[in-house]
Amino acid sequence: MIDDSIIWAHLDGLAKPRRSLGKLESLAAKLAAVQQRLDPVTRPRRIVLFAGDHGVIAQGVSAWPAAVTASMVDTIAAGRATSNALAAAQDCDLRLVDVGVASPLAGNAPSWFRSARIADGTQDLATGPAMSIADFDAAWAVGADEAKRAADGGFAIVIAGEMGIGNTTPAACLTALLAGIPAYAAIGPGAGADDTIIANKRRVVAGAVAGLAARLNADPRAAIASVSGFEIIAMAGFFAAAAEANITILLDGFVATAAALVAERLRPGTKRAMIAAHRSAEPGHMAALNQLGLTPLLEWDMRLGEGTGALVALPLLDSAAALLSNVVSLSELGLGRAD
Amino acid sequence: MIDDSIIWAHLDGLAKPRRSLGKLESLAAKLAAVQQRLDPVTRPRRIVLFAGDHGVIAQGVSAWPAAVTASMVDTIAAGRATSNALAAAQDCDLRLVDVGVASPLAGNAPSWFRSARIADGTQDLATGPAMSIADFDAAWAVGADEAKRAADGGFAIVIAGEMGIGNTTPAACLTALLAGIPAYAAIGPGAGADDTIIANKRRVVAGAVAGLAARLNADPRAAIASVSGFEIIAMAGFFAAAAEANITILLDGFVATAAALVAERLRPGTKRAMIAAHRSAEPGHMAALNQLGLTPLLEWDMRLGEGTGALVALPLLDSAAALLSNVVSLSELGLGRAD
Repeated sequence: MIDDSIIWAHLDGLAKPRRSLGKLESLAAKLAAVQQRLDPVTRPRRIVLFAGDHGVIAQGVSAWPAAVTASMVDTIAAGRATSNALAAAQDCDLRLVDVGVASPLAGNAPSWFRSARIADGTQDLATGPAMSIADFDAAWAVGADEAKRAADGGFAIVIAGEMGIGNTTPAACLTALLAGIPAYAAIGPGAGADDTIIANKRRVVAGAVAGLAARLNADPRAAIASVSGFEIIAMAGFFAAAAEANITILLDGFVATAAALVAERLRPGTKRAMIAAHRSAEPGHMAALNQLGLTPLLEWDMRLGEGTGALVALPLLDSAAALLSNVVSLSELGLGRAD
Repeated sequence: MIDDSIIWAHLDGLAKPRRSLGKLESLAAKLAAVQQRLDPVTRPRRIVLFAGDHGVIAQGVSAWPAAVTASMVDTIAAGRATSNALAAAQDCDLRLVDVGVASPLAGNAPSWFRSARIADGTQDLATGPAMSIADFDAAWAVGADEAKRAADGGFAIVIAGEMGIGNTTPAACLTALLAGIPAYAAIGPGAGADDTIIANKRRVVAGAVAGLAARLNADPRAAIASVSGFEIIAMAGFFAAAAEANITILLDGFVATAAALVAERLRPGTKRAMIAAHRSAEPGHMAALNQLGLTPLLEWDMRLGEGTGALVALPLLDSAAALLSNVVSLSELGLGRAD
């Protein structure tokens, strides 16, 4: 067991003033603890983007029409979205998985695209369960299979990202349910909601979550499925299986963290594989991170989704790993500690 | 002229929710403004480390003995210091320049080491001028020459870092003098000072800066030289010449920013080439950044020196550049703005 005392003794023995790299040292310690080694690795790394549509869009909870999901899936498949640009800049392999977009990919499918469509989007969670238990299990299995592929490919770090117009509404439901905060505290602007849309989100989330806490204890999977999205459950399955395979998870923002709450609830211990990339602009995100005991690296008011916040934070892990692995110790230089 | 309205129109036209990448978009806008192009470049990049010793160490202002400067220069030359590890991790070329260490390099000199020694360290600034005007000019010229070499090499981004036991004392003098803050507000722990050392620093800085503001107007170079270090003036010359050559400067922490204050005072406009990497743990740093009108990217309590804070922030610029250059516009997708 590489515990904190071993890790900090290593860091404090390096040829530099003690703790003089501040948060980079905390990150290095976290990375070493997650990987249980003093020379953690950050390559190769992969982001898997899961895409799905949401019946709850009928309630007026998003600034963007549902068709934008399919349009952005096309854009990602064409390599021209923000996630593609950042993944390329940070030397991160990228895969795109359709787990339930309203319409199938229109353009050409690259080799890294996978069609694993559960349905043409979820049902409206405001009027009934968003999905059946069978569909929940199917979405989870798609994500778990992606983690297995990452493990087979020898990936050291994985990120899960999502594309799904309307998905901050199920994410807010799950955050309220699983982080135990009031529905209104979990509601934010998402991808640019105005006051009317936010009022709709408040009404929908409060209604959907009311009474669900009791059901959560009796049948957690059914309670979670009722207010979820396919891409969220696929991310949860991905996280649980990645953690089991000892792959380090770099956790993105609000929607990904809602998936992490699901994974931790159904597979306790999953959070031990996680490093939180950032605190998003969504107000419920910090409560979700607190619930998981995670401290975000960046507080940059990012709220795009597509795993972009994690891609921005990714190279900070490279520096943390280099610090642990490639700096000489004071004792090797024959110097004592002066601080 | 690529002004802010042009830059933000470009960013707001990209296929993502408006301003949804928060501080990454601010960084992208700054990078575009500094480089005056909507497709800024971040490679190749180079860090130049300037090393020198400080006579003021005799006043008990550092936790570390002066010999550690030479020892760390040896360590950097051997490729085993923190700056080497981070530069390698972030694909950054590294050079090391001795502008006045107490003793010459003991080990083998790599091709990227340069001996440009002005003297065996500065004089004690508590008892007289730290250096002569001639030595000031010589140190400045070494830095300017390094900027010219970087320009000839086609480097898009440069970082200046420093190694010099005791150099937070001259940096505090310069910050008090040039950012107009009281001496006590510019004093911090440096590389691990205890209360006695901090009291010594307070006494030395207050004494050295008293009456210097008046002299600054009459003969700025002489006033600055009296409380400087060779590596600090070399960095100032480096910044001024890099800005003149239109190279983007990623500014490190407290000591580098003191050099930036010098450069801006003697070559007004130098600051327009600068992006501030981080706010260091040194209390005077924020005042210096404010004086330059710069907003730090990271607030990670880093205080190591060697340009390490800038190296940690460097890959964030890669993401900002990728956002500007490689993301499709909404209009090209045939979509309108919904937010």
